Amino acid sequence: MSRTALFAGTFDPITVGHEDIIRRALPLFDHIAVAIGNNIGKRTPLFDIDTRRRWVEMTFADCPTVSADTYSCATIDYCIEHGIRYLIRGIRNPNDLVYEQEIALLNKRMAPEVETVFLLTAPQHSDVSSSAVREFVIFGKDASELVPAAIRNDFSHIVKNLKNKEL
Amino acid sequence: MSRTALFAGTFDPITVGHEDIIRRALPLFDHIAVAIGNNIGKRTPLFDIDTRRRWVEMTFADCPTVSADTYSCATIDYCIEHGIRYLIRGIRNPNDLVYEQEIALLNKRMAPEVETVFLLTAPQHSDVSSSAVREFVIFGKDASELVPAAIRNDFSHIVKNLKNKEL
Amino acid sequence: MSRTALFAGTFDPITVGHEDIIRRALPLFDHIAVAIGNNIGKRTPLFDIDTRRRWVEMTFADCPTVSADTYSCATIDYCIEHGIRYLIRGIRNPNDLVYEQEIALLNKRMAPEVETVFLLTAPQHSDVSSSAVREFVIFGKDASELVPAAIRNDFSHIVKNLKNKEL
Amino acid sequence: MSRTALFAGTFDPITVGHEDIIRRALPLFDHIAVAIGNNIGKRTPLFDIDTRRRWVEMTFADCPTVSADTYSCATIDYCIEHGIRYLIRGIRNPNDLVYEQEIALLNKRMAPEVETVFLLTAPQHSDVSSSAVREFVIFGKDASELVPAAIRNDFSHIVKNLKNKEL
Amino acid sequence: MSRTALFAGTFDPITVGHEDIIRRALPLFDHIAVAIGNNIGKRTPLFDIDTRRRWVEMTFADCPTVSADTYSCATIDYCIEHGIRYLIRGIRNPNDLVYEQEIALLNKRMAPEVETVFLLTAPQHSDVSSSAVREFVIFGKDASELVPAAIRNDFSHIVKNLKNKEL
Amino acid sequence: MSRTALFAGTFDPITVGHEDIIRRALPLFDHIAVAIGNNIGKRTPLFDIDTRRRWVEMTFADCPTVSADTYSCATIDYCIEHGIRYLIRGIRNPNDLVYEQEIALLNKRMAPEVETVFLLTAPQHSDVSSSAVREFVIFGKDASELVPAAIRNDFSHIVKNLKNKEL
Repeated sequence: MSRTALFAGTFDPITVGHEDIIRRALPLFDHIAVAIGNNIGKRTPLFDIDTRRRWVEMTFADCPTVSADTYSCATIDYCIEHGIRYLIRGIRNPNDLVYEQEIALLNKRMAPEVETVFLLTAPQHSDVSSSAVREFVIFGKDASELVPAAIRNDFSHIVKNLKNKEL
Repeated sequence: MSRTALFAGTFDPITVGHEDIIRRALPLFDHIAVAIGNNIGKRTPLFDIDTRRRWVEMTFADCPTVSADTYSCATIDYCIEHGIRYLIRGIRNPNDLVYEQEIALLNKRMAPEVETVFLLTAPQHSDVSSSAVREFVIFGKDASELVPAAIRNDFSHIVKNLKNKEL
Repeated sequence: MSRTALFAGTFDPITVGHEDIIRRALPLFDHIAVAIGNNIGKRTPLFDIDTRRRWVEMTFADCPTVSADTYSCATIDYCIEHGIRYLIRGIRNPNDLVYEQEIALLNKRMAPEVETVFLLTAPQHSDVSSSAVREFVIFGKDASELVPAAIRNDFSHIVKNLKNKEL
Repeated sequence: MSRTALFAGTFDPITVGHEDIIRRALPLFDHIAVAIGNNIGKRTPLFDIDTRRRWVEMTFADCPTVSADTYSCATIDYCIEHGIRYLIRGIRNPNDLVYEQEIALLNKRMAPEVETVFLLTAPQHSDVSSSAVREFVIFGKDASELVPAAIRNDFSHIVKNLKNKEL
Repeated sequence: MSRTALFAGTFDPITVGHEDIIRRALPLFDHIAVAIGNNIGKRTPLFDIDTRRRWVEMTFADCPTVSADTYSCATIDYCIEHGIRYLIRGIRNPNDLVYEQEIALLNKRMAPEVETVFLLTAPQHSDVSSSAVREFVIFGKDASELVPAAIRNDFSHIVKNLKNKEL
Repeated sequence: MSRTALFAGTFDPITVGHEDIIRRALPLFDHIAVAIGNNIGKRTPLFDIDTRRRWVEMTFADCPTVSADTYSCATIDYCIEHGIRYLIRGIRNPNDLVYEQEIALLNKRMAPEVETVFLLTAPQHSDVSSSAVREFVIFGKDASELVPAAIRNDFSHIVKNLKNKEL
């Protein structure tokens, strides 16, 4: 039986933390679907959905078993619809754990056959998050160290052209 | 001396977690007042105050020592005004504890005679919260398992008729 | 129905933290039994069982609804045998919570009718514990500030006469 | 490539918590090796190594992809020696996470190719541990609810015959 | 070499907690710059920048080595621009730590020469925060116990004159 | 006024984590005393006091403001006796914080003039501890990466000659 896993998020933008978790999960699964949430929650993303998807695709261009997709439903419904049995999540610290425990247990209620599999964020990425990247961008700091090497040029170009009203 | 306790919250909506804590606290107190916060905080509740109150009343229809009320002041002022000496709170995890410690200590400053009494949330409810119920509702998932048995029909009926703009 | 609660521990020795929790719990219960564990665990107590019991009795000499006892069974068995429905515990920090959650859930398995009720340790006692008192004693520091006022003289006297081999 | 995972522990004794984690991990791996630590640490196990191994085998008698083994080296050396790339661990709470993070990072230093994969303990097992089972046994309480159904009879029989000096 | 430290925040308003941390840090540094963030984040402060700055100045009027300033850039840029090598932060609980660890590590990426130095909040202030003060103000409670003695009169006067629309 | 700080511990053995904290604290103090606890606690150290002291001295041979000493009293008494006003501690995670908070508050009771100053352990050392080094040694793993570069040769030589009975 083929093992497919879902790594879902807003990826606003994808970070070296996301990339590391997915690359370390690669040998564990036959296929990893990276699903980018569109219009989930009230916050308007800093980067549009096409840019976020392109960055995911560029990051894993060398990984034939990774695919990118967008979605606007509940994450667990994406699993159910696509017959996916595993969710991958990275954990950085105890607060992440408490948050993820709630989500994972709620997901179990809705789809008991879906298992959430956790990997630990590498310590050198323990401060990396999409919101940290956005903070850097808003304060005009160079955030390229926090995003995957494969997107750094494109990321810097896009950031330079963000209109002030978008920040 | 009669022992009255206050269980205060937004109850947007009441959950099986709330119900369990209150039922387990019943034998400990002569009377438990369940007070539903009205217009507290910036977030507009998903369910109106009358609905939220009705659900509390339906949930404890079989409990003569439980009463429902609404309030719009600080919780500790409700205690002072009604001569209530005990606050009941449920705790699910360490993050809840840190949050509740701050609130309880601030309350002690204002009314040293009021004691906050904590019960532990049952493990099977550790992922249940009003915000989880609202998430389910917003994504069109069936949340009836998360609300008290006594209100399930009414809850499902109300949810079905929520206008899209309310979600 | 009479409400009796159990506050169980090793009380090696009783501290101002224990005293504060019990005094704050007093109005909540008709009777509080303070039970001092004898020969529980591998560590030999620093103070003998008679001394520990005397100190509990001296601490609550002014409280007619508090009684002292010793026991050597599992705490939950003491509840069952004496028909006690409430356990009182103090919580100082998130680590205490994680520890107490395990104990409370295990107790629920053995006696579902027994409820554990938690009060928060007052912040000025957040560093007080019996083991801290013993550390002070071992290093020859004055620990009398950490034990109840009613036992300070007796405590200092006993400590002065502890033979070196007992430390 | 075949995916083999190691679930290592003292299993003194195996619990329903261990069983649940392993069963939920089954579809994720082609083979799970359950390795029972022998003579690791200073504490003498309550149950001998043969009994502990038999209980693991009985628990997974219906699982052709689970095998039992004993070991006395460092866990990571067992992985290296057997070419195992995955360690499975269950996490119950934030304290478990902090502990497991240290172990997993130390293991990464010694064998970067080995990934530790975490599953969350089911909430109904959040208080279950081998040490809790041993506490029950020492106090003469019935612990059979905490061990796998397949070993309950054998477990109860062995416990009944534990000589007092072993407790 | 002169040792200058930065204590940065929104100070909306300054609390006894802030004051205590800064006073305890005084002997450790030759100079402490208190920098009040202006227009940082989305939330509109309850008190205007001039009031917040005046309160900082009044609080440390007796401390020749403390100065007050306002800023609108990233905190780390303020350090770089002013050649400041130390950031001072107070920590109240484990959640504060997790939050501060992320900030401190991100700051290290941008300016490795800047060290964040942590002091523990005194236990009697463990529930004090600017947001707690604002809650008190919004509910019409007397918050003067939570702000420095030197500003209490001025604070009470300003609070009395807050227009309703500002709350 | 001269600023002297104490970094106290068992240093069984000193690790790269200890070294990093002390080096980062160097510019903050005029002098840092590294005090090695002798015969504190029940556990017999793996390395003798002379070896542990030599390793501290070798580690900071290039730091004229660092000195090494041994002590057998309570740490706070060492501060009082030597007129030291600052204790330095490294923090790796929330559990460390809870532990350190208790110690720091107890120390404040005995010597209010002594301030404990915390630095965050660098993330790449978050799994490093003396007990981890000892585990490596006991299992025959190469632990030299976890100890300061200046002692690696000496450490490896000593470890090689540890008699089995010492492990």
